[in-house]
Amino acid sequence: MARYSPSVQNLISRLSGLPGIGGKSAQKLAFHILSMPENDANALAESILEARKLTKRCKTCQNFTDTDVCPICSDAKRDTSVVCVVESPRDVSTFERMHEFKGLYHVLHGVYNPMNSKNMNDITLTQLFDRLSKNAEIKEVIMATNQTAEGNATALYVSRLLAPTGIKVTRLASGLPMGSDIEFADDLTLANALKGRIEIN
Amino acid sequence: MARYSPSVQNLISRLSGLPGIGGKSAQKLAFHILSMPENDANALAESILEARKLTKRCKTCQNFTDTDVCPICSDAKRDTSVVCVVESPRDVSTFERMHEFKGLYHVLHGVYNPMNSKNMNDITLTQLFDRLSKNAEIKEVIMATNQTAEGNATALYVSRLLAPTGIKVTRLASGLPMGSDIEFADDLTLANALKGRIEIN
Repeated sequence: MARYSPSVQNLISRLSGLPGIGGKSAQKLAFHILSMPENDANALAESILEARKLTKRCKTCQNFTDTDVCPICSDAKRDTSVVCVVESPRDVSTFERMHEFKGLYHVLHGVYNPMNSKNMNDITLTQLFDRLSKNAEIKEVIMATNQTAEGNATALYVSRLLAPTGIKVTRLASGLPMGSDIEFADDLTLANALKGRIEIN
Repeated sequence: MARYSPSVQNLISRLSGLPGIGGKSAQKLAFHILSMPENDANALAESILEARKLTKRCKTCQNFTDTDVCPICSDAKRDTSVVCVVESPRDVSTFERMHEFKGLYHVLHGVYNPMNSKNMNDITLTQLFDRLSKNAEIKEVIMATNQTAEGNATALYVSRLLAPTGIKVTRLASGLPMGSDIEFADDLTLANALKGRIEIN
């Protein structure tokens, strides 16, 4: 005998396909959805459909937006000479929260994975190179991919390809996080912090 | 400037209204939904709408089902003399997973909260008493509400109300979980285990 009716079972399996949601959480969410006011449940479903319908990728930076060109790319006050290349749209919002960076972004929607070269077509490197070739005012590309093997590989790959163009390719500094104890730093982070040490003015 | 477009913001806020999903998880889920194949995203939304449309409460036990009477209540092989009263549909599936209990269930969809007496109407106690008055073959009610203050209060409340009827009201045993060390047991659990000690045959 099935433990739940087919529609509930289907809801649970759809929910458990989401990242970070296991079988138990999916059950909990499904029963919450069945117990919440009908309007709220419908609004949740509608918000998924609507976000999918209205959201597209910005023609310039590939970030999610509901306009052809996203608000950041169409903001005349931004510094168009610097492009910060990030892995995901969430990284853009993390940078924006900081209020320190005034340049533009490019969202890769993933990262180069040496174990799976097929995914080179999934990430937006072609669009990045196309954009760089068409916009001569771009002088610097900041590779702000994550400090992981794949993130570093992507940064290196881009810097090699851009070497002949004369565009400066930089990487975010790796080092000790603010407020951290050296005692608890891992070897790689400490080595990076030592290598990247700066003079005290 | 808004950090996300309105439709994405709406999706994030709808997702963060779900239990156990905070702001960061909601963002992560929203961007996953925007990145997944369109068919899958639509299927997720449809599964919510369909589960809500097809699912109702079983007329007898109040568990979620897609038929008038749920498969458990309409199963002729179940023991109709015992009703196990649980807080949520998930508890039914936990009992069923055990394959030990052959009686019927009653789902309260909540628990009696002494701090908020209004919620007495939200839980299905009326339906339980109605069911007991109409089905003379029910000889025992097992109060399988959680071992919490509210769960205990609900069990006590039901047992008081049923005292004149002659229906036996029992409570699941409280004690040490299997495989646990006495050293790490909390005082209340240990006291309950001592009080409920049984003779070794």
